[in-house]
Amino acid sequence: MISDTAKKKLREIFGKVSILDSTEDRIAYSYDGTPLLSSLPELIAIPASVDQLSQLMKLANEEKFSIVPRGSGSGLSGGSIPSENSVVLLMNRWDKVIELDKNNLTAWVEPGVITGKFQSFVESQGLFYPPDPGSSQICTLGGNVAENAGGLRGLKYGVTKNYVLGFEVVLPNGDVMRIGGKNMKDVAGYNLKDVLIGSEGTLGIFTKILLKLIPLPKASKTLLAFYDSIAGAAETVSAITAARISPAMLEFLDNPTIRAVEDFTHLGLDTNTGAILLVEVDGPRSAVEEDSAAIEAICRKSGAKSVRVARDEAESTKLKAARKSAFTALARIRPTTILEDATVPRSELTTMVNFINGTAKKHDIQIGTFGHAGDGNLHPTGLTDERDKAEIKRTEDAFEEIFRKAVDLGGTITGEHGVGLAKRKFLESLYDTPFIKLMRTTKEMLDPNFVLNPGKIISVSPRCEGALPKSREQIERITAKMDNPSEAYF
Amino acid sequence: MISDTAKKKLREIFGKVSILDSTEDRIAYSYDGTPLLSSLPELIAIPASVDQLSQLMKLANEEKFSIVPRGSGSGLSGGSIPSENSVVLLMNRWDKVIELDKNNLTAWVEPGVITGKFQSFVESQGLFYPPDPGSSQICTLGGNVAENAGGLRGLKYGVTKNYVLGFEVVLPNGDVMRIGGKNMKDVAGYNLKDVLIGSEGTLGIFTKILLKLIPLPKASKTLLAFYDSIAGAAETVSAITAARISPAMLEFLDNPTIRAVEDFTHLGLDTNTGAILLVEVDGPRSAVEEDSAAIEAICRKSGAKSVRVARDEAESTKLKAARKSAFTALARIRPTTILEDATVPRSELTTMVNFINGTAKKHDIQIGTFGHAGDGNLHPTGLTDERDKAEIKRTEDAFEEIFRKAVDLGGTITGEHGVGLAKRKFLESLYDTPFIKLMRTTKEMLDPNFVLNPGKIISVSPRCEGALPKSREQIERITAKMDNPSEAYF
Repeated sequence: MISDTAKKKLREIFGKVSILDSTEDRIAYSYDGTPLLSSLPELIAIPASVDQLSQLMKLANEEKFSIVPRGSGSGLSGGSIPSENSVVLLMNRWDKVIELDKNNLTAWVEPGVITGKFQSFVESQGLFYPPDPGSSQICTLGGNVAENAGGLRGLKYGVTKNYVLGFEVVLPNGDVMRIGGKNMKDVAGYNLKDVLIGSEGTLGIFTKILLKLIPLPKASKTLLAFYDSIAGAAETVSAITAARISPAMLEFLDNPTIRAVEDFTHLGLDTNTGAILLVEVDGPRSAVEEDSAAIEAICRKSGAKSVRVARDEAESTKLKAARKSAFTALARIRPTTILEDATVPRSELTTMVNFINGTAKKHDIQIGTFGHAGDGNLHPTGLTDERDKAEIKRTEDAFEEIFRKAVDLGGTITGEHGVGLAKRKFLESLYDTPFIKLMRTTKEMLDPNFVLNPGKIISVSPRCEGALPKSREQIERITAKMDNPSEAYF
Repeated sequence: MISDTAKKKLREIFGKVSILDSTEDRIAYSYDGTPLLSSLPELIAIPASVDQLSQLMKLANEEKFSIVPRGSGSGLSGGSIPSENSVVLLMNRWDKVIELDKNNLTAWVEPGVITGKFQSFVESQGLFYPPDPGSSQICTLGGNVAENAGGLRGLKYGVTKNYVLGFEVVLPNGDVMRIGGKNMKDVAGYNLKDVLIGSEGTLGIFTKILLKLIPLPKASKTLLAFYDSIAGAAETVSAITAARISPAMLEFLDNPTIRAVEDFTHLGLDTNTGAILLVEVDGPRSAVEEDSAAIEAICRKSGAKSVRVARDEAESTKLKAARKSAFTALARIRPTTILEDATVPRSELTTMVNFINGTAKKHDIQIGTFGHAGDGNLHPTGLTDERDKAEIKRTEDAFEEIFRKAVDLGGTITGEHGVGLAKRKFLESLYDTPFIKLMRTTKEMLDPNFVLNPGKIISVSPRCEGALPKSREQIERITAKMDNPSEAYF
């Protein structure tokens, strides 16, 4: 419980209207994009200044409550699920682009700016912000930085961290730190910037972010290639690499995903297709023509039954829609969708996809797989129903095997979604002891009282073991009690 | 002094022939590429295994001596200058390329591999390792990772850290940690990899490094543009950016540097030229032709007196030689060459170069400036004589003003050379208190007894203040005593 003194002080810091504590609000912020996990916060705070955040951190250390920062809540690893005694911090109203510097190709943004809106804005200025997470239309740049979000253009352009030049951050002790700048090279001191990036809201709260932009490619072209089997698609990926071409996107859908997508989009995809590759090349116009012709030939040589090349922007958007709708399309099939991101070295693509399919069969569950073939970042997606405990158990068992296999193949348990709560146990069981130990001391160094998003990434026992997520059932019990607000909810 | 017990144990760990302690050897490893700094180590160790390194770290913690890792010793910020009671660790015999994985475009290397040799090797396989520090023919990959080396291709391709996927590292407590892998996306846990990169040998010793490669560009073209003044060159840089072209190199030489280079190379450069820009574009053949034609036009429009376009590889190599010989050419003018790397946002290039020239004049010293115009990474190079104390003082005063100005312009005190000993005082005086504090706690977290390269980047007072570098004079006194080996040298 957050003490009454602390609550009073919180209202003094933020003002009464910026602290929410109604049951409706608490429920609204009890979950994020991650299935199966939820937990009620005690309060929700809407900060208006860096100084308020600094005061909040200090108060949390004094009064021993925890703070869970939140952007759009679209995360898929439980990174913004409230912990015990927590205040959820809503950063999504910090949504201004503060500066666009066309000479240095940089932008200062607030953390609540929607990624897709920012992309469109800079593209209208002839500039390009390549990181492109699947949730770009709803997620925030601050969330992307906190999770080091990946996306569709990782192969050629890298991920979010490659575009973060600096930031202002409020540290768990309340210190406000500015780090980085508009320099394309900077080795002055330890690179603490890149530890905070991807720290999943556990080491600091970003208040301003300096992003690197690049010139917008002059042209692009999209192809869709259809294969009888995964093997042909994987062979194409290798052959494209061997031909020294770096596509902007090299995406993959398996048969269950293709069927779901066709059912949802009516794009006219052949539902007997074993696998589809979506390839986009971009760059100077002549290079784009050269590369797309070469890729078309490679696809056919590697066994593609057919290849569709977009004739124009409109058709390209339509072809990309097939890939981009994969998650939504799969989510329509069953009530609960568990979207994972087991990732392997590119050479292990076929082995991994075959293993996923075998594991789904073995445990009698449904998994559709799609993802970023070019960088080995797969999204095996479990289609299940959280009310069916037995099936959920089988699904969890299957994913445990999948993560173990990914690590055995030299891969990782998460390519772009983060560890959060959802994969904490895998991180702690699958990785090297010195690495885990050092992660723990890093957290302790920056946040000795575990006030900031405790229990995410690594356990912070014993103090925060109670902060394990509660089941949705608990929320339902709470919801049922809503007519009787005088009762204590926890 | 390292105790006799410790020395005995060191000989047990490494074997007698792998511990050097003659005065000649100690002098040979008392300095690196940095002028004005040197200090004698007590011993030099040549490790043969990871286990030896782990034992060494543990012994250093027990016996309280320090360890200074060293590659080729080509660093320019004093990062491998021995500290008090130190053992210099020679990593340059670890020079094997362990694996080249053409499917995943990765290579496992040992830290002592020479960067230029590695570049040539992967290029012979159709692959590309872009980081290209000026010292590529002599520096090691391990040194590059420790310093997060930059180089000539930073603008388009980034720096060393963008190509390090993982490593095996011996931590200051003797733990051996493996981190990273062949995954192009990996967000499993805190990004501690990128803190170790660029930690200048103060947080760990790399024993194996996994590098990312990319396909070798199919073509490239080199241009040299001659201007009356810096302003025209700077305008060209802005116009190239505005035209959405990302050259692989965009390098700059000022008039004092041009004169020195011409005197050294006899390339036929007009020594009345105010500034030269060297531009290289690479990529698919058609794009290279398109971009180089566009850049030539931009150069002329921005006031270039003339533009030389290389007709072939041989001429391109010759043009690049002008830029690559800058340091050597300048170093011939006076006995002592202080090569710095004040870096500013690209838009501040003209302001910074003019300030450097003004400051040189004000303090009556000689500075030639060249560097990476595309990423604002300048190399003002002080030409002086360490025997002339008054001139050295004026040079140091001038550089202090130059670093302050760089920081005032939103720049940094070091773009690619590192802080080491040479810029420690600037780091501590010019940056934010929370950032400095956090750097210090990071060092303490990983190396509580300050055994690994103490005193570099940040002071570790009071224990290691005595580890300040000693002057070259001291070495000379020692050298003079070499005929009388029975005397104690320290």
